[in-house]
Amino acid sequence: MDQQQLIVKMVLQGWENYIRRTDELFTGLSDEQLLREVSPGRNRGIYLLGHLTAVHDRMLPLLELGKVNYPQLESPFLSNPDKSGHEFPPIPELRQQWADINKKLEDGFPSLSPENWFDRHTAVTREDFVKEPNRNKLNLIINRTGHLATHYGQLIFLKY
Amino acid sequence: MDQQQLIVKMVLQGWENYIRRTDELFTGLSDEQLLREVSPGRNRGIYLLGHLTAVHDRMLPLLELGKVNYPQLESPFLSNPDKSGHEFPPIPELRQQWADINKKLEDGFPSLSPENWFDRHTAVTREDFVKEPNRNKLNLIINRTGHLATHYGQLIFLKY
Repeated sequence: MDQQQLIVKMVLQGWENYIRRTDELFTGLSDEQLLREVSPGRNRGIYLLGHLTAVHDRMLPLLELGKVNYPQLESPFLSNPDKSGHEFPPIPELRQQWADINKKLEDGFPSLSPENWFDRHTAVTREDFVKEPNRNKLNLIINRTGHLATHYGQLIFLKY
Repeated sequence: MDQQQLIVKMVLQGWENYIRRTDELFTGLSDEQLLREVSPGRNRGIYLLGHLTAVHDRMLPLLELGKVNYPQLESPFLSNPDKSGHEFPPIPELRQQWADINKKLEDGFPSLSPENWFDRHTAVTREDFVKEPNRNKLNLIINRTGHLATHYGQLIFLKY
């Protein structure tokens, strides 16, 4: 394995690590537990489930792995905070979408070559990418892993 | 900038991003706020401040950047959970140690060449490293960034 492949593997392992932990957490939580706030006055589990699914869904076009699958999640879970009055989909449906999107990402990753990973993600223009070559697809994974880990730290409060 | 330098920069930026956010958070919290639990029945802010400092302090020898500076933090903040009966140092002292360790890491990072970053961290034996070349110094940063982001997500609950 050359160093390029190695670094891609390292970054993807970091992502998969938090996907696995968060997925195990969601699986172990009942629908009733997901309706609770992670801490008094904070986001509910169901909101974070939809929020993470919507954020990960948008990674597909950014990585050129496909289009957004569930655009209907954007308004209730991305553009608006929890308890904004939006009706949420049933929790079993959200669980299914969470699993589906993460599977699509996992299945898509091997189709990207190391060169692809070091190419820009689609939210960066070609001009900006010349000046900021760190804004590549691999960096998107690094940033989204941090986002996921931040919410994972909050979701574990639902567990006990 | 070659690709090796670029990837080191990307990973370090991810780390610095969460260090900055967490540092701004701690700076904006009063000593009184740090004595509160991040959520009912959970760790207190002071514990997470000492815990993150102790974890980051141990990164220095793992990265061959120096020895542990505050071994006295290990028992109250690493080997034992919060509210275990250990007396904690005064908060101003902990704040100083947090700043000091992160500064030592930041100052030490440029002394590592890209080759150094892809070399094993010192908790991995030479034999294991042959089999698992991903267990290098850069990967330690990836893992510790996830750890930091997890606790950052909890600490922001102290803010409002």
